This record gives sequence, structure tokens and C-alpha cells, in this order.
Amino acid sequence: MSKVLVLNAGSSSLKYQVIDMKTEEALVKGLCERIGIDGGVITHKYNGKKVVTNIEMKDHTAALEFVLKSIVDKEIGCVKSLDEISAVGHRVLHGGETFTKAVKIDDKVISQIEELIPLGPLHQPANLQGIYACKKLMPNVPQVAVFDTAFHSTMKPKAFRYAIPNEDYTEYHIRKYGFHGTSHKYVSQKMAEYFGRKGKFVVLHIGNGASLSAVSGGVCQDTSMGYTPLDGCMMGTRSGSVDASILPTLCEKHGFDVNGAINYLNKKSGLYGLTGFSDGRDVENASKNANGAYTTEQVNNARLAEDMRAYIDAKIVASYVVPLGGLDAIAFTAGVGENDYLYRQRVVNYLAGFGIEIDEEKNSKRGVEGEISTEDSDVKVYVIPTNEELQIAKESIEVLGL
Amino acid sequence: MSKVLVLNAGSSSLKYQVIDMKTEEALVKGLCERIGIDGGVITHKYNGKKVVTNIEMKDHTAALEFVLKSIVDKEIGCVKSLDEISAVGHRVLHGGETFTKAVKIDDKVISQIEELIPLGPLHQPANLQGIYACKKLMPNVPQVAVFDTAFHSTMKPKAFRYAIPNEDYTEYHIRKYGFHGTSHKYVSQKMAEYFGRKGKFVVLHIGNGASLSAVSGGVCQDTSMGYTPLDGCMMGTRSGSVDASILPTLCEKHGFDVNGAINYLNKKSGLYGLTGFSDGRDVENASKNANGAYTTEQVNNARLAEDMRAYIDAKIVASYVVPLGGLDAIAFTAGVGENDYLYRQRVVNYLAGFGIEIDEEKNSKRGVEGEISTEDSDVKVYVIPTNEELQIAKESIEVLGL
Repeated sequence: MSKVLVLNAGSSSLKYQVIDMKTEEALVKGLCERIGIDGGVITHKYNGKKVVTNIEMKDHTAALEFVLKSIVDKEIGCVKSLDEISAVGHRVLHGGETFTKAVKIDDKVISQIEELIPLGPLHQPANLQGIYACKKLMPNVPQVAVFDTAFHSTMKPKAFRYAIPNEDYTEYHIRKYGFHGTSHKYVSQKMAEYFGRKGKFVVLHIGNGASLSAVSGGVCQDTSMGYTPLDGCMMGTRSGSVDASILPTLCEKHGFDVNGAINYLNKKSGLYGLTGFSDGRDVENASKNANGAYTTEQVNNARLAEDMRAYIDAKIVASYVVPLGGLDAIAFTAGVGENDYLYRQRVVNYLAGFGIEIDEEKNSKRGVEGEISTEDSDVKVYVIPTNEELQIAKESIEVLGL
Repeated sequence: MSKVLVLNAGSSSLKYQVIDMKTEEALVKGLCERIGIDGGVITHKYNGKKVVTNIEMKDHTAALEFVLKSIVDKEIGCVKSLDEISAVGHRVLHGGETFTKAVKIDDKVISQIEELIPLGPLHQPANLQGIYACKKLMPNVPQVAVFDTAFHSTMKPKAFRYAIPNEDYTEYHIRKYGFHGTSHKYVSQKMAEYFGRKGKFVVLHIGNGASLSAVSGGVCQDTSMGYTPLDGCMMGTRSGSVDASILPTLCEKHGFDVNGAINYLNKKSGLYGLTGFSDGRDVENASKNANGAYTTEQVNNARLAEDMRAYIDAKIVASYVVPLGGLDAIAFTAGVGENDYLYRQRVVNYLAGFGIEIDEEKNSKRGVEGEISTEDSDVKVYVIPTNEELQIAKESIEVLGL
């Protein structure tokens, strides 16, 4: 059975895993940081152990070169030769309307991915760096692109169009795309296993970035992120949905141009904007006034932020009764969704109108996969740790017919 | 019993009604148009008849002067002398956080309304023109300001705050205000009469502008318009909610600055942007390909717009199960809500997950007040023609203790 190298290339980073498709376990995993910047560092994990190497990497090819050496290393690696790697699966941010599913990479695909750079000006070129590096260093290993938008490509126009002039869609491709698709797909498939069949599901992928999806018949009907990952839920530093008309006021008061205002909504807003903290754990400490270290204002701001986040996310869940025609189950995933039981409790409390109820004991665990609703709950509730790398590996194998 | 003059002053218009509070009927009503512009015209209605007068009006005072003459006219008027008018009720767009209910107007109130001009730069100065004119021409008649935002002032911070830095709220007053409050209040009170008690209600005020509100215990818990009337539903020419991140692309592609982009979302979007028509009746004709006069593309665009509008509005209704903790009844009001039975049918179809059902026969009527749901429907559905003028008159009387 095959082994797949999964790569997620960021602008100055490269995350990797080698996954054994027999066990669906990662044999090794790691992260190259500060690529193209002074002070490069690679963290490599194998057999429960960790090696940290300080090394300058002038580009993604240099980083990958080091990664491939580690993978075949007798001590810290997992294969004897790179011939054992049957595929490379790449996380690619944006498939636009061109790619509605994973695809084997060839020169044509590369140029199509390049054409989509305007839709993902930060991530798309980084993803391409990973592809270029593999093409150079592993020319005989087939590569697959798995798009973060693809799972959402089944949305109907009523869900993905904005009520703006048609030409902005037809000419400039302004529409809702949705992101975190690989995670939404993975989790909704797991939900179907727990539920016993494909049902009317909502996935809450709540991490530093956060999005929800409505899934029925195994396909995405709607999602909360939009043209970009700014829209929808309030996030660590992103505002989520706002009245677009606040932009002129933000520009006037802060001296921003329109890009400056969007940057402000992406980087200075969300939990951070309301509390000064972008990490939910710090917000929780403030809301509890841990060690009496916080002012009344900090405590109140933190409580408001926690309450708002749950309120907004619950409203999105509720709204999905429309595309789904009902609600069978919801699942929490990603950093906050998997680990923050207080967040889960708040969301479920806000959904009381649906006859949903969680078992406090089951909910109190962190990161444990399973059902957490009570027997009587009209809507099942699951915690399902996401595994985008495994999903990418599976789709790579599938696309290649391996 | 008293008679109330209700005024709604726009930038170049003045709408008026004299309402007899005993019968709650308008004795006369009318509209002055093109104030301060060449080609002024006043349409005055009385006793089922109509007089149209072409007259230049240099300002709102001149318009009001003519209106007052009409009101006391033996032929077309309704009172012998202006002494019979016991109050003037003004529609005022924005109460900000200053005014949470209707208020008797004095010099201090006028200056507070003036201070709120930045929140409603187009409407607020126009509303003030109406107040100035009355102060001059009817100095002894008490005036009351009834704010379009006031009914929404009961929203809690979790509903009205945006996840943006605190100072944007505390310093610059950026928050959700909500509009159409007088209509939402009037209709939700009527719903309580039909329902037999204050329930968990959603009001769909769908006209050329459109907003929804969630009302429980007789108070507003949430609403779909935001900092401005752009947000929420898709409307005649307004986009409703969009990912704010489409603005940089709109600016780049169309050469807009940020205000230009917002203007485009307000004036060129919504039904108009998708179909070329801003009036739902024109869109309906196109979607039916009435007289075979439309291209396939026009028909498809019109159908998409109708479908999107219902889908979006239904999602907002569904989301309000969160603030309401359930859903007892919904009511349709305003131009589209009262008259477009196909729109109502589409919205209710999308809410099938709530066990809601309308009686096709009852629904097929235009503008008739009453219940249109089936006996078995889990959620009651009403059509309730709005009457903002009557609500303004009632609140004016109440504030003055008359």
C-alpha cells in the first residue's frame, strides 16, 4: 500500500507529512519556517520524537531538498528511498471555478493554478512554490492539487452569488467561494459514519480561522466564508461579516484606503479587536479574571467576545435549516471546535430552539472524537478532530487511481 | 379626540397625513415633490379624491405652508383651524444611541438630532428641515420626533456590536442600529393581537428597502440592517450583505474610491444589479417571460434574483431562532411583503424545515391583512400591511400624554 507526501506551502513556510495509506497514520511530519528569511528552522517529528534544525533555506526548493533528505534518513526518516513515495498531495488554496475537485498536476494545471493567483494573492503563489519544488526534485512522482475551495463548488447560484451587477460575477469572478473545504469534506464524511447515513449536517470548523458549512447528500449546500476568508464567523483577528458601509467610516477615521480597511478587518479585528487577545484561551482567562489579573473592562470585553462568537456561529447554524430543509447533526472541529468545551456549550445553548442538548460530561473532554449529545437531543452533536492532511492524501490516491 | 399631523421630510420631498386618533384613519394625505428644484408638484388626497398642484417650493417651509393651507381649506381640507391639530409627529431616521424612544422636540432635542447627522448624512438633515418648518409655522403645536432606529435600541451588545476594535464603537459609534423600526414595532404589535400574546416573532418588512426583525416579549432582539440600511436582505437596488473584501476588487475594476463602491452597492446592485429591474413586478414579468418579450438570459437572471431574495430572507428568519429561542409566527409587510404572494410562497417553502405551511388560497390575496398559514402549520404566518404614519401619530400622542 502506498505512502503519500502531503505538502502545505505557505509564503515562508512548508508543512509536510508522509502518510501510510494502509494505517492512515502520519509516519513523519514537520514544518519548515522562515524560508527565504534569516533564521530558518525545521521541526521534524517521527516516532514520537522531535528534531529541530536551524538551517538557512533560500527558497522552497531548498526547504524541500532538506525535507526529502530527512524522509529517507535511516534515523529520523520513514522510507528507504523516495521511490516508496507514490504521490505528492498539495494543499492549494484556490481552485476558482476551474477546479471543482482534486486534479493530477501537469503543465496545463500549473498554468491554470497560476491564473487564479488574483483570487488568492498571498497563498496561491506560495502553494505554487511547493509544486515547482517537487517538479524539480521529484520529477517522476505524480503530484496532485487538492483545493481548499473544491468541496464548496457544489453550492448553487442562490448560495454563491452576491446581489451585485452580473458583470462583477461573469467578468471579475466575484462570488462566494468558501474555504477550509478539505476539512469540511473530511468531517462531514466522518459525520455520515457516526450518523449511519448522509444526513442534514452542519460542520463548525472553528480555529484561528473559522467557517461553517451546510452539507446534505454528502455535498456542500452553503458555507460562511465568501469571496475571501474574511466573511462569516468572527475569528481570532478577522471581523467576519460586517455591514460593508462601515468601510468609509473606517477609512475616514483611521486614514485608511480601502485595502488598509480590509487589512484592519483581517488583522486587527475579531477576538483581538474586542479583547486585545486573538487566542481563545487568553480570552477565556480574561473572561474568568484568572488570578485576578484583569480589569473589569477587560473581563467584560472578553465575556462579550465569547458570547458574540457563540451567538454569531449559532445564527449561522440555524440559518442552514434553509438549505438543508432540517437539521440532523452538527460537528465541531479545528482548534477551538475540538478543544474549547465552553464554546461548544455556548453554541448549543443558543440552539436550544432546535431541541438540541449536549451531555456535559461527554462535552467536557478536549479533542476526543465522538458524540457529545444526550440521547434525547433532537439534533446529534459530534466532536470530530479534523485531518486535512489525511484527506489530501486520500484524494491524491483516488485521483491517481492508486 | 385629537388629530395629529404626521410628517416625513426627505431631501426634496415632504410626505404628510392628518390622522384622526378616534378612528385611526388618515383624513387627508399628500406628497410634496421637487422641493427646492424646478417643477415642484404637490399631490393631495382627501375623501377618496386627489388634487395635483404644480407649484414651486423654494424650501420645506414653503412646502409646509402650502400643506397647512390645504389642511384648513374648506373644500379639500379636514380641519376648520390649525388649532385642531394637537401634535405634529416627525419621522426621524436616526436616534443613534441618544434616543431609544419617541421624544417631544425642544431646542435641546433639535441640537441632539443635529449631532446625529453624520450617522444619516442624507436623511437626517432632511428630517430636520421638516422640524424647522413646523417650529416656524406652528410654534404653538407640540412636535414629537419618532426615530426609525428606536425600536431596535433594545438589542443586546451581542446582537448590535461588530467584531472590530472597541474604539470603533466607543469613539466612532460603529455598531448595528437597524432601521424601519416604526414599521417593525407596528407590525409586531399587530402580530401579538392575532397571536393572542407576545410571542417569538419575525417581521419581514420587504419593500424597495427591506429588513427583518426578531421580536420577543414585544421588544426587538435582532435586525438585519446594520450600521446603515445597506446590510441584510437583497433589495431593489441595494446588495444587502456581502463579503466586505469584494470592495478592493470593485474599486480596482471600476475605478471607484471606497465611497464610490458603497454607492454602487446601494444604487446599482440588488434586484437591479442582477436583472436590470429594481421593481419586483418587473422582475416577475421577466421571470415569467411575459409576452415572450425577454431573452433566455433575462429570464434566467430574473429567476435567480427571485430565488436568491427568498433564500436569503428565509436564512435570516431561520437564524432568528437563536435570539428568539424558537419561532411562533412570522409576518410579511411593506410593498413586496404585502402584495407579492409568490415571494411569500418562496420564503415559506424555504422554511419547510420548521413545519411552516401557508394556505395557497389565503396567500393568493394582495394586501389583505390576516393569517395565511394552514391550521396545521407549526408557525403562524400573517400578512400585516404596515402603517408607519399611524404608529408615529400614536407615539406622538403617547409622548405628549394627550
